[in-house]
Amino acid sequence: VGTFAFDEDTSISPGGEVTLTDRWNGMAGQVNGGYELAICTKALSQIMPFPDPLVVSGFYLRPGTPGPATVRASVLRAGKTTAFGEAGLWRDGKELVRATAAFANLNSPDQNGLLFLGTARPELPPPDEAVGFAPGLGQITIADRFDYRVAELPGWLRGQPSGNPSLEFWMRFADGRDADLTAVPLLVDAAAPPVLELGAVSTTVELTVHLRARPAPAHGPAGGWLACRATTRFVSGGYHEEDFEIWDSTGTLVAQSRQLCMILR
Amino acid sequence: VGTFAFDEDTSISPGGEVTLTDRWNGMAGQVNGGYELAICTKALSQIMPFPDPLVVSGFYLRPGTPGPATVRASVLRAGKTTAFGEAGLWRDGKELVRATAAFANLNSPDQNGLLFLGTARPELPPPDEAVGFAPGLGQITIADRFDYRVAELPGWLRGQPSGNPSLEFWMRFADGRDADLTAVPLLVDAAAPPVLELGAVSTTVELTVHLRARPAPAHGPAGGWLACRATTRFVSGGYHEEDFEIWDSTGTLVAQSRQLCMILR
Repeated sequence: VGTFAFDEDTSISPGGEVTLTDRWNGMAGQVNGGYELAICTKALSQIMPFPDPLVVSGFYLRPGTPGPATVRASVLRAGKTTAFGEAGLWRDGKELVRATAAFANLNSPDQNGLLFLGTARPELPPPDEAVGFAPGLGQITIADRFDYRVAELPGWLRGQPSGNPSLEFWMRFADGRDADLTAVPLLVDAAAPPVLELGAVSTTVELTVHLRARPAPAHGPAGGWLACRATTRFVSGGYHEEDFEIWDSTGTLVAQSRQLCMILR
Repeated sequence: VGTFAFDEDTSISPGGEVTLTDRWNGMAGQVNGGYELAICTKALSQIMPFPDPLVVSGFYLRPGTPGPATVRASVLRAGKTTAFGEAGLWRDGKELVRATAAFANLNSPDQNGLLFLGTARPELPPPDEAVGFAPGLGQITIADRFDYRVAELPGWLRGQPSGNPSLEFWMRFADGRDADLTAVPLLVDAAAPPVLELGAVSTTVELTVHLRARPAPAHGPAGGWLACRATTRFVSGGYHEEDFEIWDSTGTLVAQSRQLCMILR
């Protein structure tokens, strides 16, 4: 810890001070919303009586820019199996993100044991046989923090948007950091959005993440790689949703997220 | 207004007092979570500078029971196109639900005009030719507030859970009240959950609702009826998600919701 970019850039002082660095920028010099939500989740994890974020929702009140910020977290309710908290990320005296979360212990024995998977893990070639690509998006520095591998280059990247806003790919931290649940709120927002296949560009209004299992430690040929699926089903009235799934190397669903986005152009 | 059950039972005094009635009970004498979230949404709508809820997220801190309650709402940020607020529903000095929301004007001209529907409206027989059913669930009084119509009776209702946790049906208020966006957070939580087809019973931890369009006024043969699709794709580790779509009589997607539920048995 401390040697990886994610850990350095989500380091929170005892007083709640955090520096939003310029290594997680999305468009227009603004920090990525998933990065902000991961900071809120980390602040909550330090005060909650259970180890794992279970569901986190973030509302994006204002665009954030790199620089000094403050995160304030508090417990709303600590129950027997679930605890709830809220966190606010502030910069220059203004709240950027309001997050609410439930925490639990995802390593508890599952009394019920019911398992149903209505959708399978994305079918991708092994990471070693898949196509790597550097999006080369200039100021979008967040793309440099991750490795992505795909079966074939997506249409938007070839200048030919496919019209089908769904993407499946492998993803991992470029510096070798293992994925864990604290990083998940970042991961679900850290890939190229599938609406690029419709030629659209949008900004996040709200992002909800369901965290369903701790990712398996990195090992084996797919070690460290996460299989991801990003899909938009409904674009209408100037808004769209985006769903994101993360599966670990053992084929376990780690997380499922949905965000509501406002179309900019 | 005032003559329909929903309007009577979400009436909020200037001081924020509201009576949780026993007409919206789910299991175990507890009020339905969607009913609680609709009260929070209504309280927010009275103070927000835009008319329409755009996305609402509610965390269920404690089970709620019928009786006197208080809802407190405040504006977090009022932007040019979007405003944000939070609301808490309290009973006996304890917070039951923490809600956060973004509001906008869904009747604004859509500058972009992009339309993409990756999934079609549920294909159902016309309401007059579909099968009505009274779930007859005794203490689950919320089922008496709605009419439901289906192509054929679901397996769980015949005592033969199908193993496929997906349900499509028509739905409307039983007393003839039109659906509007304030009622949507209730509607998405007011039908039998599809996990009944797996023999499971669960409780909501968090519910997010995306409100995508004002429902068309009731008229024509499908007037007042909403086409709904409820689906669970992932049951694992003692939790599952549930997605819900609402489509109006003109074929417009009105809302899309997702909740995270904890399995009880």
